[in-house]
Parts: sequence; C-alpha cells; structure tokens
Amino acid sequence: MPLSDLIEKVRSGRAAVCVLGLGRIGLPLAVVLANSGFSVVGIDIDRERVSKVNEGKAPFREEGLEAALRDAISSGRFKATTDSRDGVALADVILLTIGTPLAFQLFTDYSQLHAALEEVLSGGIYMKAIGLKSTLFPGTIENIVIPYLEGKSGLRAGVDFAIAMIPERILEGKAIEELYSLPEIVGGINETSNAIFAELFKRINPGKAILYTSPKGAELAKLFTNIYRYVNFALANEFAIWSEMYGEDAHEIIEVANYGYPRSRIPRPGLAGGPCLGKDGLLLDNNTTFSSIVSTAWKLNEAVPQYIVESIRRRVGRLYGKRISVLGLAFKAGIDDTRLSPSAKLVGILKGYGARVIVHDPYLANTSALDEALRDPEIVIVSVNHPEFGKLARRIDESGCGLVYDVWGIFDPADFKRTSYMRFGRGR
Amino acid sequence: MPLSDLIEKVRSGRAAVCVLGLGRIGLPLAVVLANSGFSVVGIDIDRERVSKVNEGKAPFREEGLEAALRDAISSGRFKATTDSRDGVALADVILLTIGTPLAFQLFTDYSQLHAALEEVLSGGIYMKAIGLKSTLFPGTIENIVIPYLEGKSGLRAGVDFAIAMIPERILEGKAIEELYSLPEIVGGINETSNAIFAELFKRINPGKAILYTSPKGAELAKLFTNIYRYVNFALANEFAIWSEMYGEDAHEIIEVANYGYPRSRIPRPGLAGGPCLGKDGLLLDNNTTFSSIVSTAWKLNEAVPQYIVESIRRRVGRLYGKRISVLGLAFKAGIDDTRLSPSAKLVGILKGYGARVIVHDPYLANTSALDEALRDPEIVIVSVNHPEFGKLARRIDESGCGLVYDVWGIFDPADFKRTSYMRFGRGR
Repeated sequence: MPLSDLIEKVRSGRAAVCVLGLGRIGLPLAVVLANSGFSVVGIDIDRERVSKVNEGKAPFREEGLEAALRDAISSGRFKATTDSRDGVALADVILLTIGTPLAFQLFTDYSQLHAALEEVLSGGIYMKAIGLKSTLFPGTIENIVIPYLEGKSGLRAGVDFAIAMIPERILEGKAIEELYSLPEIVGGINETSNAIFAELFKRINPGKAILYTSPKGAELAKLFTNIYRYVNFALANEFAIWSEMYGEDAHEIIEVANYGYPRSRIPRPGLAGGPCLGKDGLLLDNNTTFSSIVSTAWKLNEAVPQYIVESIRRRVGRLYGKRISVLGLAFKAGIDDTRLSPSAKLVGILKGYGARVIVHDPYLANTSALDEALRDPEIVIVSVNHPEFGKLARRIDESGCGLVYDVWGIFDPADFKRTSYMRFGRGR
Repeated sequence: MPLSDLIEKVRSGRAAVCVLGLGRIGLPLAVVLANSGFSVVGIDIDRERVSKVNEGKAPFREEGLEAALRDAISSGRFKATTDSRDGVALADVILLTIGTPLAFQLFTDYSQLHAALEEVLSGGIYMKAIGLKSTLFPGTIENIVIPYLEGKSGLRAGVDFAIAMIPERILEGKAIEELYSLPEIVGGINETSNAIFAELFKRINPGKAILYTSPKGAELAKLFTNIYRYVNFALANEFAIWSEMYGEDAHEIIEVANYGYPRSRIPRPGLAGGPCLGKDGLLLDNNTTFSSIVSTAWKLNEAVPQYIVESIRRRVGRLYGKRISVLGLAFKAGIDDTRLSPSAKLVGILKGYGARVIVHDPYLANTSALDEALRDPEIVIVSVNHPEFGKLARRIDESGCGLVYDVWGIFDPADFKRTSYMRFGRGR
C-alpha cells in the first residue's frame, strides 16, 4: 500500500489516531478528534491524570472540555492510557503534543521529544503519519526529528511515513471552541503528508481553512504569531513605564490613542508571560547573536514583577515581615495554569524580601481563601485580571489595608477612600 | 471678556484662525478649516510656496488637496502669506504646525518652535487660543511652551490665553479625508482650552470624536500611536531577517500566520522610516538610559538599507562602477516626501560603494525617467512599493539586468526568466 492510501482512510474517518501527551493541548485535541468520528487513544505518563480522564473528569479548567470529554468517552471512541504500546502500534496517525521547555542558558530541552520519538518508533512507523503540535525551534523537524526517525527505522520520510509540523495556536480557556474555528497550518515534508493532515482537520470542521507551508515555515509561523503578541504586550509595558516617568496614566493614554483610530491597537499593560509567550521568542532568538526586539521585549516583561515590588517598596518602606496578599497566581486571566507565571515570580520576589505573603486565586484550589487574603492585609496586590476581582474594590478598601497595587488597572482609583491606590503605568 | 467667550465664537464659526506653517500638516488643516466656515490665514516663510498656494496649486502631492485648496481660495476664506503680523494679530485661534526635527545626538531642535512662539507673541496672545499640532517631547507644553509664553507676556495660561496640545495623526496622502474622519485628541491646559479646540474640530465634522487628556497625555498619545506602528514594522523586519537565516520567505510565513487568525496582524516587512515614524520613538527614548524596545526597533529599521546592500554585494561581488537603478525614493508608497526616507539612505550607501546609481520615482519630478532607469541596468532595486511598480516585472526581466532586488515582495519570483531574483526576507 502506498502512503497516499492514508489520505482516504483519514478522510473517511476510519483512521485510528493516537495522541501522545494529554496536557492542555493534547487532551482537548484528542477529545475533539474523537467527537469528530475518529477512534482515539490518548497516552500520558501521569497515572492520576489518565484515570481522571477515563472517569470523564477534566484535569484542568478548560471551557467545555469536561462535557466534550464525557461525550467522547460515552461514544466509545476515546480512551486514555499510560501504556503507549497498543495505541501507538495500532494508530494510523500519531500526534505529538509534548513540551519543549527552555532550560536555563536558553537551552532547549529535547528529552521529552526524544522519549516520545522512542515510543513512536517502538510501535513501528511504516505507513503512518506523524504530526507535531509542539512549539519547536526552527529546523527541529528537518534537523532533529526526521534524522532521528529515519536513522533508527531505516525508513524514508514522505515515502514510508508521513510527517508534518501542525502548530497549535489555540488560546488556553478557549481550546475547544478554537479547535473547531481556527485555521490550521500544515507544514508537511511533502504533499502526501500535507493531504493526510488536511483531511484530519477537515473532519473536525469541513470549513476549516488549511494553510500549507514547509515544516520550517510552520515552526516559524507559530513563533511569529506568539512573538507578535508578546512584543506588543511588552511595548504596552514600556509605555506604562514611560507614563509613570511623566506622571501620567498609561491606561488612559492608550485608550485615547486607540479610540476610533484604525492604525492603533495598543494592548493594555500588565504582567505578560506563561508557558508559550514567556519562552517562544527566546527559542528563536537563541540563534541570534545580537540584541533583538524579542530579547529586549523579554527582558522588559521579565523585569515588570521586580519593578512593581520596588515601586511598592519605595512607597511603603521595607517589606520584611509585612502581610501582603497577592490576588491571582495564574499566568493570565480566567485560567488555572501557573507555568512561567509572572505572578508566581512576583510572589517569589516578595518572599525573598521577607514579606508574609498570602496568595488567593479562585482558579487554583491550593491557594488561600479570599476571606483569609482579605483578613488584615497591609498591602493587597491584584496581579491577575481574573473577572472575579473586578468587584472587590470595596472589600479591599474596607479590609484596613494601607495600599492596593492594581497591576491591570481593573479598579477606579475613586473607589478607594481609605486605602491608598497604586496602578502599574500610573505615575500619580 | 472672559476666555470662555471664545468657545461660542469658535462654535459659531466667527473666530479668525491663523495656521503657522503650510507644510504637509498645516496646509491641509488650514484648507479644511476654511472650507468648514472659518476665516483662515496661513503663514509660511517660503515665498515660492506661499505664492503657489495663493494660485490654488498644491505644493506637494496630497489626494484631494488641490481641489479643496481652490474651494478655500475662491470662497475668500483662505489666504497664504509670508508676513505673520496681521494674521497672528487678528487671529482668535492660532495653530502651530511647525517641525521639531531631531538633530544628531538625539538633540531635539526647538529653534523653529521658539521662532514660531516669538511670532505668536508679537501679535499678542491675550484672549487667544494657541494649539500645537507638532509632535513634541513629553512635557514640552508644560516645561517649554507655557513658561516661554507666560514669561515673555506676563499673562497666565488657561486664564488670559488658552493652550492645548492637539496632535496630528493623519496619514500623508490621506490628509484631507482623515481630517474629517479621525478622532481628535485634545490635551488642553484646562477645560476652557479643551472646549475651544473641541468646538473648532466639531465644525469640521460635528460627528468627530473628541478625546480629552492633559497636554502631556496628548504628547504621549501621539508618540505611542506612531511608536506602536513603527515597532511592528521593525518586528516584521526582524522576522524577515530570521526567515532569511532559515532559508524561508517571511512574506509567505506572515501570510500563513495572519490568515484567519484573530490575534495576528503582523505587517509586511520593508523599509520603515520617514519624518514621523523615523524619529518619534527616539524623541521619547532620549530620556531613557537603558535600551528600550523602541531604540532596538529603530536600530533594526535603520540597519535594513545597509543589510540590503550587503546582501546584494555578497551575491554579485563588488558594487564599484556598477550601474544600479533604484526605483522609489519617497519614504513610503504613493507619496512624494523624501524626508528621513530609508530609500534615500539606501541610495547614499550605494553611492558610497562607488556604484553608478540612477534613481526613478514617479512621484518625484527631479528623478530620472523610468526609461533611463531601465536602460541597461546591471542591478534594479525596487525600494518603494509605489503601486506603479507592480507592473514592471516583465520590463525589468527584459532590460538585460542581472539581478532584481524586490524590497517589498511586490513581484512573483516566477515572473523573472533571465534576471535573477532576490527579495528582502526570502532566504532562497
């Protein structure tokens, strides 16, 4: 059978799919593919996560995930397992959603990727299609993945097995909705590889736009998308710092600059980071020997937590022993993910100064309750713009705390009668 | 009479207006104000420009300007003069549109501003409203203009005379259209000042959005708007350089990254500069002692012309004596303005290498004809994406030139059968 037979097998929904990694990318994808008619096996090393998933329970917050997961399980088309053997061996399409974390010294850690490739190889890759959803340093497919698979199997990419980079660009919290609606970038090693993955995603939504490019083009497209957003967040933060220097409020000025002006879409200042934006630029920049816009943006965003702590220290004096409540620990609003969270960094800095820090995040069960956080705090820092926090102005004002620091400008300064008010980007 | 009486005088259209500076900002503004019912005197030191304007001839290309100018002159409500005395003395509202060029060492040259303030003072400022349309370093109104006017006149800003920063944000080439449609940012020293200028702009279009802020807020809002665009152009250029490093084409990847993706609006790479974008960021950055995103973006954009010349030199060898035709000299497409034009810098670099450079720009009369530029060139560089250039692929291919360098990616590489093709951002 030639590899191109896989195209029809996928188009008809008869192809078996295996998703390696049931994290925030892999699990929603596996569930949506199962609900699109494929038989899907999801593999993860975390036993607790696997059994939770098989019980129909979402292991993290993601809108609509739990309902979709239950549908997938009750249809009999989806199961999770820690044992990769059968799933990988019987699959026609294997999707890798494993992480490529960046270690210190900007070293890309490929150990998870290599381990996943070993698992894939153990089930045989002849006449299979392998798709990578991970964010990869440009050239990873060509220079690392294909040589590894070809070298160990003796097979030829594009002929004996299909391979493509199909980067994930969903927003955490909107994963299910966006898996149906977003265009899909398919960077296959050849046209057969492209066609197989195009059919896979068209089964999710026949109207989905499919954009074809090379594997390296797909790797770069993903990075460009995230860097574009991250640099604009950093620029808003630079504007915030300049506004403070000039005694103005960046939030007000950015609103004035954007209003009705078609060429201005400056984001709001605030803490920017997280497992994608906080590292993707450096993945690319690590091959660049001079300062780039990306590295300058990264330095700026990473300095904001320390800048905020120092702003507070200059206002109130030493932080040692002070009871400081931090509201919000997730890396952005509305989710429960703390990986590379700038709020977690802020908390770490405060602890380093010897402050008594109480953290409350309504999305994270292992944090303190709101009541405890608002029991006699000396300082309250609202570090994440979770929608729940917008209504807390009066409670904070009446908590007896001396200072509230509003990172995202979610409060009206006039709401505070007793507590003094500071806002990131406001120099008055 | 209190200063607030001016509000009604402006609202009714009875106020006399004087516009200092009949450049690309001042002339369209003066003409539109005259056509909105005000009696307007326009002042400029350039005799030739003044007489041209009074004959109803636009001294530069600007869509719809000449027709609007003729209407304004024939209505009797507009005249231009080199003699500031009467215009300034009799005006109720004085608008300054003079330049604030940035000299070497990032020194802001206030000589034109000081000269304009002297002229304004010479006609008396009591019960007048003074509006600044120029791009200003934050704090210029508060720290330079108001102390100067108060110090020399003995009058009080906001009480004896009104003053506001009302930054211009029109696009060159679309000035007339945008003077009617864009929101107006009004940064007055007090509410009376705000109200006077709000009424002035509402007469142009009663539906115009008026956004109020402080003078410094208005100075910053203008800078933020331009910096936002400029940094995004620089980021696209950084993506172009990375794409070349990885043997890919940035134009293709950016299209893939943007298509149907709501969070990605990456601009196309190309030469970025001009009298606003090319300096506004540094105006702000000059008070910043560490590298900023803005200064990194400026360095990157300013390096692109040299980068292009070096790319060509590596391909073809020494440039000394080579006949090189550069198509486009304006700082952007569709206009005849060469101030701080990156194409002019590119031409300067080529001349420095000893190339025989022929420049053609259909918008600039003092450049060579297209026929001459395409007579036996060895290299053709299309440096501006003027719409006229899109059709030239075949003519360039048949000109016998060895290499075409397409800065903006306006041509399809397949259009060139004989001439070898290079594109900025394409590493193959």
